[in-house]
Amino acid sequence: MNLKNELISLARGAQKASRVLSALSAGEKNNVLKGMARALLREKKRILASNRADLRAAREKGISGALLDRLALNEARVGEMSQGIFELTKLADPVGRELKAWRRPNKLVIRKVSVPIGVIAIIYESRPNVTADCIGLCFKSGNSVILRGGSEAYNSNKAIFAVLRGVIKKFGVPEGAVNLVSTRERKAVDLLLGLSGLIDLVIPRGGEGLIRRVTRKSRIPVIKHYKGVCHVYVDESADLNMAEIICLNAKLQRPGVCNAMESLLVHKDVAARFLPGLVRKFINAGVQIKGCSFSRRVVGRKIKLARQIDYYTEYLDLKLSLKLVGSLAEAIEHINKYGSGHSDAIVTEDSRSADQFLKGVDSACVYVNASTRFTDGNQFGLGAEIGISTDKIHARGPMGLEELTTYKYQIVGNGQIRE
Amino acid sequence: MNLKNELISLARGAQKASRVLSALSAGEKNNVLKGMARALLREKKRILASNRADLRAAREKGISGALLDRLALNEARVGEMSQGIFELTKLADPVGRELKAWRRPNKLVIRKVSVPIGVIAIIYESRPNVTADCIGLCFKSGNSVILRGGSEAYNSNKAIFAVLRGVIKKFGVPEGAVNLVSTRERKAVDLLLGLSGLIDLVIPRGGEGLIRRVTRKSRIPVIKHYKGVCHVYVDESADLNMAEIICLNAKLQRPGVCNAMESLLVHKDVAARFLPGLVRKFINAGVQIKGCSFSRRVVGRKIKLARQIDYYTEYLDLKLSLKLVGSLAEAIEHINKYGSGHSDAIVTEDSRSADQFLKGVDSACVYVNASTRFTDGNQFGLGAEIGISTDKIHARGPMGLEELTTYKYQIVGNGQIRE
Repeated sequence: MNLKNELISLARGAQKASRVLSALSAGEKNNVLKGMARALLREKKRILASNRADLRAAREKGISGALLDRLALNEARVGEMSQGIFELTKLADPVGRELKAWRRPNKLVIRKVSVPIGVIAIIYESRPNVTADCIGLCFKSGNSVILRGGSEAYNSNKAIFAVLRGVIKKFGVPEGAVNLVSTRERKAVDLLLGLSGLIDLVIPRGGEGLIRRVTRKSRIPVIKHYKGVCHVYVDESADLNMAEIICLNAKLQRPGVCNAMESLLVHKDVAARFLPGLVRKFINAGVQIKGCSFSRRVVGRKIKLARQIDYYTEYLDLKLSLKLVGSLAEAIEHINKYGSGHSDAIVTEDSRSADQFLKGVDSACVYVNASTRFTDGNQFGLGAEIGISTDKIHARGPMGLEELTTYKYQIVGNGQIRE
Repeated sequence: MNLKNELISLARGAQKASRVLSALSAGEKNNVLKGMARALLREKKRILASNRADLRAAREKGISGALLDRLALNEARVGEMSQGIFELTKLADPVGRELKAWRRPNKLVIRKVSVPIGVIAIIYESRPNVTADCIGLCFKSGNSVILRGGSEAYNSNKAIFAVLRGVIKKFGVPEGAVNLVSTRERKAVDLLLGLSGLIDLVIPRGGEGLIRRVTRKSRIPVIKHYKGVCHVYVDESADLNMAEIICLNAKLQRPGVCNAMESLLVHKDVAARFLPGLVRKFINAGVQIKGCSFSRRVVGRKIKLARQIDYYTEYLDLKLSLKLVGSLAEAIEHINKYGSGHSDAIVTEDSRSADQFLKGVDSACVYVNASTRFTDGNQFGLGAEIGISTDKIHARGPMGLEELTTYKYQIVGNGQIRE
């Protein structure tokens, strides 16, 4: 059997299993999830041994630093994977919610009810914990999942998958509910992305390159975010103490993540009071700043001159773009032009400015007087997160269990026909 | 300027206008819509003259019958277009609804608020009334629209568009809010479908061929339905009088539409009592039936033998596939395999069978004891419909104004930072 037929048969199995999954009760699903959480702890040694094989191979390839860290598992990290799955059992079942119900004049009763999406493919890079997270989230939401992880995590993913699929099997759930495409053939991803009648949704997780590749190739709907070019705008009416605290947090608390601030906009009328102190703190913290020429007149040559392309850039690092603006409207326009539709904040004491910003900025999450760092499923209280979307179709912002469902209309009559 | 740059510039204008549209109040939008409804009536003569030019050209090309009828406008049809836009003014504004709101332990207030999607492209075939319908629906939901109609309706679409864009302009709304791609160059569609940073959603409307072409080419999310292979399943416990009435309605009331029954499934235990009478009525009404060999044993050779491919077929005509099944489970499996996920009904007096069918059939609209013909925005009471989706992402079933919106999160704090 060639690879294409193999993947078609795998996706068919996933689709068939999804019909069974969609009918499981919350209790049945939670029992399986508890079994998964326990099994990860029980098989910790086996998982860590497989991970060591991946780490060895990665070091031989010269991989180091952050990439190696993302790949590495240890007892604590396996414990977190287990705990993550266990936490899902405490969340409400996203399936079977009555989203709306009404009765028509002809007495037809129409109910809009949440149901699983069906089969979800997840294409991801090096972090092996994604394997466990996604199996848990898709199972809880009644979806079959097809996983395709990065080649560096080949052995780790296989081990985690084998443990969790074993649990599925033990509980009598069709094995097609969870799938791992573990061939090393690279074209497997392209083939998967062509199976539009069998796979309902693709969620790519990883760097911008991976996500663009998946989006370009896919015949299946994709939900994604390419990058987070997040802004903080300090309004002329801002409480400047608060503004400084928020800016420092948004840039420094964890610079390598998508909801960190990459670009700071400051109203020109407060720049002279606000910027020199903040810039000093940023520079002391090791932040390299690129600013517009007006900002350099205020803080001098310790910051570099920004080029236009810098304002489009997601640094994921101790770097920051800076621009003075003449008005709130200019700030909004800048964010809509250069931003990525992810998370943007205004610091202001003026409620009309706040309102204008909330309405005018076309991003998934818009903030007033808070750090952009809160864009996160757990921080939002969703309980879990499968990703963040900067798309506008289906799901936007942090995606939890509810975003892994769709709906159907159930219509009950007593013989109604159309006249 | 070449066509590609022309379309990019048009889409940029649409995106820019969408920021203005998204901030309009319900009253402002309704005033423009009333202006549009009036203008269509006032400019009736001009629209009908353009339509006559299209009809002449179509006849010269040898187009006739249903296609010519779809293309033709008359005073009444222009009146309906006008009325359709006027009716939108009575519907609630789909933008600015608070879908959810909650407060986090750190006092952040998170609101999930409906907002327009942005820029929507509609690719459609010969019916010129789609031009007016889509401009009205997109405008009411705060979206800019880019229309690409069929070449047969070239002059009609241009005339309707000119009238409605004139109204937009008169009310001081940016003209980029409504756009018609009127070049005769066929590659315009492919170019549009590549503009993924500027257009947020594509809705193709027309035959399966058009929709498959659009889906294959698009880099932008597409919401669609290919076809409606709708089933009625007559359960062993059905009220057979009711079943007959529903079957006749679902097949005969309007055979050429997507929610008409194409395939009838009958439990074997009621086939001998139910089928002979119904088949006689269908044959008298001119319906050609293709049945499985078991059904032919019941009703004889007046029906042809069905091949497997017939069960996948959307006839849109006085034709019907027929199959006897041994159980409800077999019916559900048949529908999930051969159906199109559009609209399927069970006729039964057994509430457990009804429930099993509602849950087990993976279609946008599942019915108990009612005709499939109710799958329609107006029949559902949505007030208007831009199309029907058999996709599972974003919107499923009839799509009204709410389905033309997405949401954003508005988060308000008083200096919260992430620890």
